[in-house]
Amino acid sequence: MNLKDLIKESKSKILMLVADGIGGLPHPDHGNMTELEAANTPNIDSLAKKGIVGLTVPVLHGIAPGSGPAHLALFGYDPIKIEIGRGVLEALGVGFPLTPKDIAIRGNFATKDESGRIVDRRAGRIPSEESRKLVEKIAQSIEEVQGVKIILKPGKEHRFVLILRGEDLSDEVNDTDPQKEGLPPLEPTARTPKAERTASVLKKFIETANYVLKDNRRANTVLLRGIASVPRIEPFGERYRLKPLALAYYPMYKGLTRLLGMDTPDVGNTFDDLIGYLKVHWEEYDFFYVHYKETDKAGEDGDFEKKVKTIEELDKRIPSLMSLNPDVFVLTGDHSTPALWGAHSWHPNPTLIVSKYAGSDSADRFSERTCKSGYLGTIYAKDLMPILLANAGRLKKYGA
Amino acid sequence: MNLKDLIKESKSKILMLVADGIGGLPHPDHGNMTELEAANTPNIDSLAKKGIVGLTVPVLHGIAPGSGPAHLALFGYDPIKIEIGRGVLEALGVGFPLTPKDIAIRGNFATKDESGRIVDRRAGRIPSEESRKLVEKIAQSIEEVQGVKIILKPGKEHRFVLILRGEDLSDEVNDTDPQKEGLPPLEPTARTPKAERTASVLKKFIETANYVLKDNRRANTVLLRGIASVPRIEPFGERYRLKPLALAYYPMYKGLTRLLGMDTPDVGNTFDDLIGYLKVHWEEYDFFYVHYKETDKAGEDGDFEKKVKTIEELDKRIPSLMSLNPDVFVLTGDHSTPALWGAHSWHPNPTLIVSKYAGSDSADRFSERTCKSGYLGTIYAKDLMPILLANAGRLKKYGA
Repeated sequence: MNLKDLIKESKSKILMLVADGIGGLPHPDHGNMTELEAANTPNIDSLAKKGIVGLTVPVLHGIAPGSGPAHLALFGYDPIKIEIGRGVLEALGVGFPLTPKDIAIRGNFATKDESGRIVDRRAGRIPSEESRKLVEKIAQSIEEVQGVKIILKPGKEHRFVLILRGEDLSDEVNDTDPQKEGLPPLEPTARTPKAERTASVLKKFIETANYVLKDNRRANTVLLRGIASVPRIEPFGERYRLKPLALAYYPMYKGLTRLLGMDTPDVGNTFDDLIGYLKVHWEEYDFFYVHYKETDKAGEDGDFEKKVKTIEELDKRIPSLMSLNPDVFVLTGDHSTPALWGAHSWHPNPTLIVSKYAGSDSADRFSERTCKSGYLGTIYAKDLMPILLANAGRLKKYGA
Repeated sequence: MNLKDLIKESKSKILMLVADGIGGLPHPDHGNMTELEAANTPNIDSLAKKGIVGLTVPVLHGIAPGSGPAHLALFGYDPIKIEIGRGVLEALGVGFPLTPKDIAIRGNFATKDESGRIVDRRAGRIPSEESRKLVEKIAQSIEEVQGVKIILKPGKEHRFVLILRGEDLSDEVNDTDPQKEGLPPLEPTARTPKAERTASVLKKFIETANYVLKDNRRANTVLLRGIASVPRIEPFGERYRLKPLALAYYPMYKGLTRLLGMDTPDVGNTFDDLIGYLKVHWEEYDFFYVHYKETDKAGEDGDFEKKVKTIEELDKRIPSLMSLNPDVFVLTGDHSTPALWGAHSWHPNPTLIVSKYAGSDSADRFSERTCKSGYLGTIYAKDLMPILLANAGRLKKYGA
């Protein structure tokens, strides 16, 4: 069975609201409640009464995912089969629009001694401003090698992203970072014959960078790692015959959705900017991904009270979102970020679906505990999209 | 692990009652109750109290299956790996007993103009009686081609089923239906060398049919599609070392169970006919599949009240069935057919198991909501058979 063969057209609209890291854990200092239980969320709770709830396991039981695999699963792709390399994630993180012809690489400025040994793999964590200037200088000195375009983007402190754009490139090239101080950098060696050309382009890049940086005290060389090609992912719109609009105010999520071929405009720096844009462009699309980052940030900070507040702020925006009257509405997380844990965790995502055909359960509140008993059950996140499509009347019967 | 290696003999009996499409959805016009919740079902509820309940996902989350894949899953086969072609389903639908040597094809009478273009792909939906006569006429004119037996069965209106029976036939032949009016029919071309002979038999069949039909105004040609060979499915009896009796009063389900090698007698046109036969032959078998069609029909009609009544009618027959005292009794659906949706849906099947060793839960009623919280949990339908076999004492321990 191929899901694609079952897709049918419809005028129905699906709105997917992802509250990053919304799932939490009962906290001993807060009456043993989770962040969702402590929050006052009248609007979300009324949706929980109306619709069905459940839990979604982002990747596999016990696995705390990064945003990449967690989002792939939400969008119905197998996060185990599709791997997004580190270099690609770094490029997405700085908001760089990758194309299928690109190889993305994480770069570090580093310090080597006179004998060529690396004495500081991070060049003393030079300030971002200094790093940015060096990146510009190198970029001016090397724009193309053997027909391959060299693109450089500065990152935080000693970090930068290197993108090679050209035909027949390969990511089967070893890192140059020796991983340990006191060793010389490694050569960018090709692991397969078809990667020889890419390796030779990288060698030339390193030579040029070394020449440009030769008079610097700290940042006098570069180390490359996470050499990654852009994964070939079937565009979301083709996969489901949907016209998707992705709204996010953090670069990584914009990069990810662009990788999936979604329309991802730059619309501002706040969640309210996204809602504003959504309302104006509601008629032009039929799938809407809207990303709320604040819950995850507070969770990562280990700040229980702040996370409760970010949930309450989200709740206040629910009536405005629901006034658009989507045929299928889903509120979920990509992964959990419990304040108690202070990082992405493996706990399944509280999930809520509102649709005329969703079914029903007895949940009258949106929390990890009520979701555990919901009609949706505990499912893998990658199984969510087919359920949304079914509710939207966008799937034909399988077999007769 | 191979389930077959764990099978052991026993004298225990398993009774599987499949109420087609029994699962439903809360209906806004009926107090937001589902059909099962609205129905008065004292007998089924008392079984729910005694046994365990749960939900079974027919194929995959979000996928609404046809009866073919849904039943394969119920019988423990993987409904994704085994595909039953359209022609085969059509043949099963008219109750034709297929053999592994058969190729089954859906036929349509159609109208072509003088230039040979199809002007009506359904020959104006000629009456079944007219169609039946034409089928007989063609059948008399062509009984065998190149050692291949030609079997024709009339269907409803413009439809018929063509079966080729012979050695070394192949289903890798393209449809002749151009799918659009205004185009000439396509040739039955072979996609692989081994399908050449089948294609040439079909060509001869079409020539003969065209000759027989040449003087008709509407049905003056035929279109063939869904050319399918009979899937090689391990017989149910061998797979589980069971002696199965299948009882159904609709042809499709009889055809399906015959395809699985079950004993499938023609016993009548009502559910009561099945019960009567079951009682007389209870000692001769150890697995019993009994199919109740009425629930699905009412659901397909979108008739909530009628579906409630069909459930109540089924409930009245429960004491009679349970008087046989099966070691393991299961009541489930193949797929849901909510009156609100008016078609097969993706919602998991309410399922109830009564056995001395089933376990227990707090369900005191049989409904989608109580099943959601039942001890069986939410499982894939294809995992039900091992649970039934285990309850029947028909599975050895795996490993030591």
